[in-house]
Amino acid sequence: MARLDEVVGRIGPVDPSFLKKAQERLDNLTKPRGSLGRLEEFAARFVAIREELRPRLDKKVIFTLAGDHGVAEEGVSAFPKEVTTQMVLNFIRGGAAINVLARHVGADVVVVDVGVDHDFGDLEGLVRRKVVRGTGNIRIGPAMARDEALRAIEAGIDLAEEYARRGYHIFGTGDMGIANTTPSSAIIAVFSGKPVEEVTGRGTGIDDATYERKVRVIEEAIAVNSPDPQDPIDVLSKVGGAEIGGIAGIVLGASSRRIPVVIDGFISTAGALVASRIEPKVKDYLFAAHRSVEKGHRVMLEMMGLEPFLDLSMRLGEGTGAALGIGLVEAAVKIYNEMATFDDAAVSREREKEVVD
Amino acid sequence: MARLDEVVGRIGPVDPSFLKKAQERLDNLTKPRGSLGRLEEFAARFVAIREELRPRLDKKVIFTLAGDHGVAEEGVSAFPKEVTTQMVLNFIRGGAAINVLARHVGADVVVVDVGVDHDFGDLEGLVRRKVVRGTGNIRIGPAMARDEALRAIEAGIDLAEEYARRGYHIFGTGDMGIANTTPSSAIIAVFSGKPVEEVTGRGTGIDDATYERKVRVIEEAIAVNSPDPQDPIDVLSKVGGAEIGGIAGIVLGASSRRIPVVIDGFISTAGALVASRIEPKVKDYLFAAHRSVEKGHRVMLEMMGLEPFLDLSMRLGEGTGAALGIGLVEAAVKIYNEMATFDDAAVSREREKEVVD
Repeated sequence: MARLDEVVGRIGPVDPSFLKKAQERLDNLTKPRGSLGRLEEFAARFVAIREELRPRLDKKVIFTLAGDHGVAEEGVSAFPKEVTTQMVLNFIRGGAAINVLARHVGADVVVVDVGVDHDFGDLEGLVRRKVVRGTGNIRIGPAMARDEALRAIEAGIDLAEEYARRGYHIFGTGDMGIANTTPSSAIIAVFSGKPVEEVTGRGTGIDDATYERKVRVIEEAIAVNSPDPQDPIDVLSKVGGAEIGGIAGIVLGASSRRIPVVIDGFISTAGALVASRIEPKVKDYLFAAHRSVEKGHRVMLEMMGLEPFLDLSMRLGEGTGAALGIGLVEAAVKIYNEMATFDDAAVSREREKEVVD
Repeated sequence: MARLDEVVGRIGPVDPSFLKKAQERLDNLTKPRGSLGRLEEFAARFVAIREELRPRLDKKVIFTLAGDHGVAEEGVSAFPKEVTTQMVLNFIRGGAAINVLARHVGADVVVVDVGVDHDFGDLEGLVRRKVVRGTGNIRIGPAMARDEALRAIEAGIDLAEEYARRGYHIFGTGDMGIANTTPSSAIIAVFSGKPVEEVTGRGTGIDDATYERKVRVIEEAIAVNSPDPQDPIDVLSKVGGAEIGGIAGIVLGASSRRIPVVIDGFISTAGALVASRIEPKVKDYLFAAHRSVEKGHRVMLEMMGLEPFLDLSMRLGEGTGAALGIGLVEAAVKIYNEMATFDDAAVSREREKEVVD
């Protein structure tokens, strides 16, 4: 807890004077003011987070955190539980969607076992930070002990600090864990106070009967565990998951080191939501990559005031949306760094009087 | 006209059997079926357009077509007319937004003078296909002669054929022309039959008085010229523009050579709309990159049945949205080509009975 408190204590607000200076430069580039829309917003936020007027963005990493979920035994997913382990091996070999998309945007992928129910031994390429061998079945009891939830968060903090030290400029988050939309929906329901059905979707693709079972399981999980919405660690430990805690830790650690985090879809956003309940200032460091088809996603994004920018009907996780999002944030930073100014290019400016925005 | 007819005659429908074969492969990759949403759609469409089950996508080009507009003298833009010429020089020197974003996605930029009111001499790096030195002021007469409109289209066809021969796999379109949202709105109004105000936006950023003037100018242009909505060349010549015609030609030429075209925002989509009125089958070859803030954009996309995938509040043109769109289509094709299958990776499949999509 001391470590978490120390990190949280280091998270400051983003300095608005950097946003202003960045916008001044953006307004001086050879384009109508504001015409690059959200790319301009991303560039200004990146400058302000990094507190660098000529920021670099070439070292990029996506953390894909894996964990198993006891609640999978309730039959809430379309896939068998062993797929978590199989997909970790697929990530290590480079054959999964996240590997392809991370290569596409020039990002490294760091695969982390925070809670998989499998002994990977000393598998090369896997970061071993296991805090549980799968969580408990939340329908009948807590996912983890409070101490385990804290260690999951600390695993994320350690990763963030390590990659900050190594000079990385942006992080993406991702997840792998069969059944992990179930704890994610439970987390949203607890923090938002909304009915479970309003924040629960069909995950990787389940039929009506399975969906109804999933909603009932989440309702029971909340009733049985009574997580305290004022205590984010309590919520995470009782109805969350190890990889969700790890993602929360990455968000907290990154914010404390002034590193922007592009969050992926439903599960990553649940992790970011936990982090934002521990320290609301983390919102300033977040970019929401895409709108997942999971219906609770929009609720979380609204709670954090985040507006996603990709609408590709994706619902895979792993960090796939974050990878594409990193590519777009990088495009924005290049616009900021590389475009000619009106003076450089001898281009006439717009007529001041007639400009409305 | 013979050349146009010959090209149009070569445009065939996209073969649905390729879509099916591509989807079979996508369903066999290590992810829940359909979980990559529109990336899967893009990959399948790319395969079907190219008619290659293992398609390549590494040679990418964005055509940025420039032209001036006599209607600029009505004060419908926030920028003075000479900015068209200045920006062409900026494109050639590599300092504009399109240069930055094209470099980001690894695409070449081809800058084409189809109708700029300036003599560039033999400026290196500029493709010279000038058909007019600026169009006529559409408020008082036609933009171009019918023959000039045809030559603008042919310039685009020639570019498409040249870059097809050179082995390019995907095209993007872009535009530069002060005041060119005015003819674009006129084109939409004529083809859609909607009131001018419903399809007219604020371009690079104009105030209320200028906006009202712009709407009146377009209404007068349509009244004075009486373009025939059944005759796309008539519409283009009377209320269009040279760069819009060039973009229509690129779309037609690309479709005839089975090359996918990622269209940019408002002006490019107006060009694509002209092409789709000449030959509706071109729609199968188009990807709409982003939703422009110009309000007529949605009307055009709906007329062509296209759904954009980036929502970045951009309104710059030049091909900037197309560049980002090409990056995402490439990501989709890499997913298709590079991901491991369930069998390769020894990953268990989803339970058949429970899968709903």
